[in-house]
Amino acid sequence: MYNSAHNGFTASVDRERLISPRGIAVIGASRDSSRIGGQPIKALQAAGYTGGIYPVNPRYEEVAGLRCYPDAAHIDEPCDLAIIAVSSAHVLKSIRDCSSAGIGFAVILSGGFRESGESGAALEHELLEAARAGGVRLIGPNCQGLVNFPNRVFAAFGSITGELDLPEGPVSMAFQSGGFGFAIATQAAAEGVGFRTCISTGNEADLTTPDLLDVFIDDPGTSICAAYIEGLSNGRRLIDVGRKALEASKPLLVWKGGNTESGARAAASHTANMTGSYEVFQSAFRQAGIIEVFDVQEMVDLFKVFSTRRQARGERIGALSISGGSGIVFADRAIRDGLSLPEFGAETARKLAEIVPTFGSAANPIDITAGVFNDMGLFERALEATIEDDGIDQLAILLASLPGAAALSAARVIVAVAERTEKPVLVGWSVRRDRAEEAYDLLEAAGIPIIPTPVRLAHAAAVSSRWATQRRTILARPQWADTEDAFPVLPETSRPLDEFSSKQVLADAGIGRSVDVLMPCDGAPAVAAECLTYPLVAKIVSKDIAHKTEVGGVKLGIATPQELDRAVQDILASVARHAPEARLEGILLAEMVADATEALMGVVQDPCFGPVVAVGLGGIYAEIFGDVSFRVAPFDEDVAREMIFELKSLPIFQGARGREPADIDAFAETLAQLSQFAWYHRHRLRELDINPALVRPATLSATGMRGGIVIADALMILSDVTTGGHVRDSDHA
Amino acid sequence: MYNSAHNGFTASVDRERLISPRGIAVIGASRDSSRIGGQPIKALQAAGYTGGIYPVNPRYEEVAGLRCYPDAAHIDEPCDLAIIAVSSAHVLKSIRDCSSAGIGFAVILSGGFRESGESGAALEHELLEAARAGGVRLIGPNCQGLVNFPNRVFAAFGSITGELDLPEGPVSMAFQSGGFGFAIATQAAAEGVGFRTCISTGNEADLTTPDLLDVFIDDPGTSICAAYIEGLSNGRRLIDVGRKALEASKPLLVWKGGNTESGARAAASHTANMTGSYEVFQSAFRQAGIIEVFDVQEMVDLFKVFSTRRQARGERIGALSISGGSGIVFADRAIRDGLSLPEFGAETARKLAEIVPTFGSAANPIDITAGVFNDMGLFERALEATIEDDGIDQLAILLASLPGAAALSAARVIVAVAERTEKPVLVGWSVRRDRAEEAYDLLEAAGIPIIPTPVRLAHAAAVSSRWATQRRTILARPQWADTEDAFPVLPETSRPLDEFSSKQVLADAGIGRSVDVLMPCDGAPAVAAECLTYPLVAKIVSKDIAHKTEVGGVKLGIATPQELDRAVQDILASVARHAPEARLEGILLAEMVADATEALMGVVQDPCFGPVVAVGLGGIYAEIFGDVSFRVAPFDEDVAREMIFELKSLPIFQGARGREPADIDAFAETLAQLSQFAWYHRHRLRELDINPALVRPATLSATGMRGGIVIADALMILSDVTTGGHVRDSDHA
Repeated sequence: MYNSAHNGFTASVDRERLISPRGIAVIGASRDSSRIGGQPIKALQAAGYTGGIYPVNPRYEEVAGLRCYPDAAHIDEPCDLAIIAVSSAHVLKSIRDCSSAGIGFAVILSGGFRESGESGAALEHELLEAARAGGVRLIGPNCQGLVNFPNRVFAAFGSITGELDLPEGPVSMAFQSGGFGFAIATQAAAEGVGFRTCISTGNEADLTTPDLLDVFIDDPGTSICAAYIEGLSNGRRLIDVGRKALEASKPLLVWKGGNTESGARAAASHTANMTGSYEVFQSAFRQAGIIEVFDVQEMVDLFKVFSTRRQARGERIGALSISGGSGIVFADRAIRDGLSLPEFGAETARKLAEIVPTFGSAANPIDITAGVFNDMGLFERALEATIEDDGIDQLAILLASLPGAAALSAARVIVAVAERTEKPVLVGWSVRRDRAEEAYDLLEAAGIPIIPTPVRLAHAAAVSSRWATQRRTILARPQWADTEDAFPVLPETSRPLDEFSSKQVLADAGIGRSVDVLMPCDGAPAVAAECLTYPLVAKIVSKDIAHKTEVGGVKLGIATPQELDRAVQDILASVARHAPEARLEGILLAEMVADATEALMGVVQDPCFGPVVAVGLGGIYAEIFGDVSFRVAPFDEDVAREMIFELKSLPIFQGARGREPADIDAFAETLAQLSQFAWYHRHRLRELDINPALVRPATLSATGMRGGIVIADALMILSDVTTGGHVRDSDHA
Repeated sequence: MYNSAHNGFTASVDRERLISPRGIAVIGASRDSSRIGGQPIKALQAAGYTGGIYPVNPRYEEVAGLRCYPDAAHIDEPCDLAIIAVSSAHVLKSIRDCSSAGIGFAVILSGGFRESGESGAALEHELLEAARAGGVRLIGPNCQGLVNFPNRVFAAFGSITGELDLPEGPVSMAFQSGGFGFAIATQAAAEGVGFRTCISTGNEADLTTPDLLDVFIDDPGTSICAAYIEGLSNGRRLIDVGRKALEASKPLLVWKGGNTESGARAAASHTANMTGSYEVFQSAFRQAGIIEVFDVQEMVDLFKVFSTRRQARGERIGALSISGGSGIVFADRAIRDGLSLPEFGAETARKLAEIVPTFGSAANPIDITAGVFNDMGLFERALEATIEDDGIDQLAILLASLPGAAALSAARVIVAVAERTEKPVLVGWSVRRDRAEEAYDLLEAAGIPIIPTPVRLAHAAAVSSRWATQRRTILARPQWADTEDAFPVLPETSRPLDEFSSKQVLADAGIGRSVDVLMPCDGAPAVAAECLTYPLVAKIVSKDIAHKTEVGGVKLGIATPQELDRAVQDILASVARHAPEARLEGILLAEMVADATEALMGVVQDPCFGPVVAVGLGGIYAEIFGDVSFRVAPFDEDVAREMIFELKSLPIFQGARGREPADIDAFAETLAQLSQFAWYHRHRLRELDINPALVRPATLSATGMRGGIVIADALMILSDVTTGGHVRDSDHA
């Protein structure tokens, strides 16, 4: 399921040469500059690439004024990168030649591999074997190539080879759709974003998107990393790379496409139905501090904000507008996205009251009104007072569509004020560039981001602030909360475990506790229940019955032995009527748990991420309201608590409307323990659905170990011992 | 609460002259063209306004080469509009002069009225009286003015008077924030949107945003109406205008700002707490077919799509991309926003299979690959096959960042194909205009919208398609479902009605039914319950206890008279402990309703919209998950059903997980009846909270009239008879 054995780089490869090659071979060089084998040569020459360019084609002595080699093996100059543009049948030989010539990287533009069917897949496999044997790392095949703007490396074909004048900058990006990825880059560039390296990853036979993000993080010239992905062979590697990006303080932005495809997911229980793998992706992004983005403009705005490299210390923002409406829509979006616009301190308020006219507003968001530009000293004092307020972590200045001379004066003041603070200063401004060229230049030179609408500015400020907070939180935690503890072995069966067996396994693993007795169908209920305290619940136990309530297999609130006798008779009669074929293991008798909040806990095997833990409100509500949070296992109590606090139903656990607050400490502890269990048994545990887990009131739980959580129902599905194993140990970096 | 008496125009005023005046007076004319009294004169002259310009200022004989009048009363030429730029103290006199001169409209730029405090408010009131007496309609005061681009009317000040070259077009817009509104217009214009009339509405002393939207709808040159609003004095008028826009087939886009302000709402119950008036606004937008927008780019995209005036017949879209990723992110967003990308018909599939290369995809979204541009005939056949498919209502063509000659050829083909169909054809394309000028011109001339990203295109296509559907639905309904039926009079009290009285009022009004008995606290429970069928529920009744469960005031599942005795004792003891001060009216005994789904129904008085009905899942879930839908009362069963179908919890009512499906017909009928009741008693009914209403299974409800809904708990708050009255009858158009 995972394809991880060769992910990552070995220490022996000089990764920098991928984006800064000393020489570039073009295998399948063409004299026709419109052909795939001609486009990169033309682009490299026109762009002013200063390394050696080595066309390879046995038919020519010379291409585009350059010496042409019969094969790559003959290249006798330092050469680190090969662009391969020959038909699929000849790629294998090209790779072997690269190996002979000591070329460490090959960008394979050629198609005709895995994407074109079975024989192509076989060819791709052969290719990969040859590359590994020969020490050549591959981009592609079936990709549009690699571009590094500062080094003038245009190892690509398509419209990007006509975009030689795109601005250089701090952003490096990998994408799983070539044409679309380069279109994103082109469009972002048109909005003033500078790029460093862009790589179309194609089939990812060897190097994957996370591998390339890893390269970007290590690249000193890259301060912002981005990717467009549709799927991953090993999601855990992305999480690891995400953490590495946080450590390097380089924001990692990921756009995930293909989220409405139904995809191939085998799990059949309700928890699994909710586990759209897109939701798992989103959880993994949160877990790794990766910023999910949804469109090009949003990426552009974030690129601009992150380019400043200033990080807000918290979510408190001051806003100062020259038109009431812009401050209002800014505040609407800022608050929706998690920022706060606090009241200013007394000193700030006093200063602002002197500056802001009565028809404006001195509260946050400030409406200073356009009249302020009659006296730029007022504008400067207002900005200064606001940014110096201790209760403010960053400042947004909303200039509406201010043009001309006023704009230039405003820009000068903003630059001056921004220089005197460490806090982020952002500008919302929609005037056309040609109406205020000088002001734009001034702000850009000072590294102050300009975003065209108040709403987009608010969103970008919120995302960057959230990232800074997430970064601090995640870096304060161990990378994976992998326990040293061993868990008991699992039963050797591949049939679903019944409720009683599932609960036993969980109890042995120290995950919650159960207070129940399994009675044979022909047993004596009152005798079986002797060690239990009424009221009780009685439930049918059968591997053939997934949803017990639907067949009348559950009776609650049984108060006396007489009621218990009646309840057992009713259950057996109802089950015989509704599920006559079901094989019955018996009837489970359990103590009722008073005042508890019903939760759902589950484990699914995600094709990208392996074992994933889910939590939500119990019963049908989690499903109906889509209120489930996920994390990739294993994790610790901190992460478990974060999951619980993400739930919209959190107030119910916290004691909404006079309820007893539930024992959230025990809940988080149990969830973390479950995640350890899921990771330890990842080779066997296919699916686990605990619904409900009863989270008892916090006030009662102080007495017992893990006493807070009672497993009221559970269903566990294991893989066969021999075929089991969803995740290899090597996947866990 | 409502300020409606003078909303709307009387038939006697020629409304067209507001935007197409024969002459314009500038009262407070200045020779300094940078001053407020100088800017409009300069702009009118520079813009080439062809009507008469009449400066008014007793200090001058001539201004800017024009004859200057000592006061407006002396203007002896046809003049329809006055721009008033004098200090607030002189505005009143100016309005009287306008009246004398027969000037029907005044745009008051001057500030110093309601926005500046009490004396300003008094002045504004006086002003309004004079205007009404003199037959002058007002824009403002405290506004930035009015601009009509085709007629070259620049009755405004500020940066818009420097934007004389903005393109003309079909959009008219009113906004409650002048600087921000004109900034939106400027920015939209920079993205190629043409405007007709833009009006900054200021304090809206006389003409309000809905009044002006009404003018736009009647204006033949306007085909798209838009507004930025922060509040409304009479929300119902907006709903009426919304319907009028639907009838005229003119989309009405509204951006609502100021939604995070807590605002002044008095209601204290939980239903009221959830009734953020922003949610009511959003419901009203849906009710009236108004399109809510959230940022400038989104407005721009919708302006472009609506400019084509083609309406999709349904939500099924075909997408054709030249790069896989763009089709994928298009599909993600399209589906999220309510479109579907159906499979193509057999004939279409056959044609596409011949055209699309194997490394592309012939399924929807089609990835035709960039290679198609080697043979434009293939591209044309692919487009044609897709658009002709009967299962497709509109077509999105995603060109990524295709530049140059290929782009021009593609544009030619797209224009040709679009001419042969009535279905909307939209283009997603991100290349810079200067890389494909001719192609842009060609598409724009043919009225084909070009939107820069696939995601924005998907959203715009979805919104326009949803609007077309909503329009058909709403126009098929009566405007207000105002019943002729009288409802019984309400009790004459302003204290909250207790549960029992509230239920009686509802029963008398034919809203659901109750099966219960009110017993005095010292009564004999078993005797009181003689006419009821066990199991029962017992509940404390006290005006001083809002949340009965929280004081132990409710017992469920009482199976026998003995249990009932115990339950009543327990309740009285618990209430005495938890609420010793509460005055008790008695204990309510009611039959338990089996298998019912608990719903919440409520009525609140919204300051903008008057009586509003809420519905949601009962208990605490509606509040926790924010799953409540609202509609402005009164409405019919169709609308009630729409409300129910909006709920995320709908599956619970429909019988999720083996439950009995609830009687949604009766639910909708009861809700509609409640809305009639709320409207009929709008002068008295301050608040009503029915929680829970028990919606019984559909299978049982066939027996009785409105038998499907049992009111299990209700709390009603009435206004005092003398002070009551939240809504005047005149508000109901």
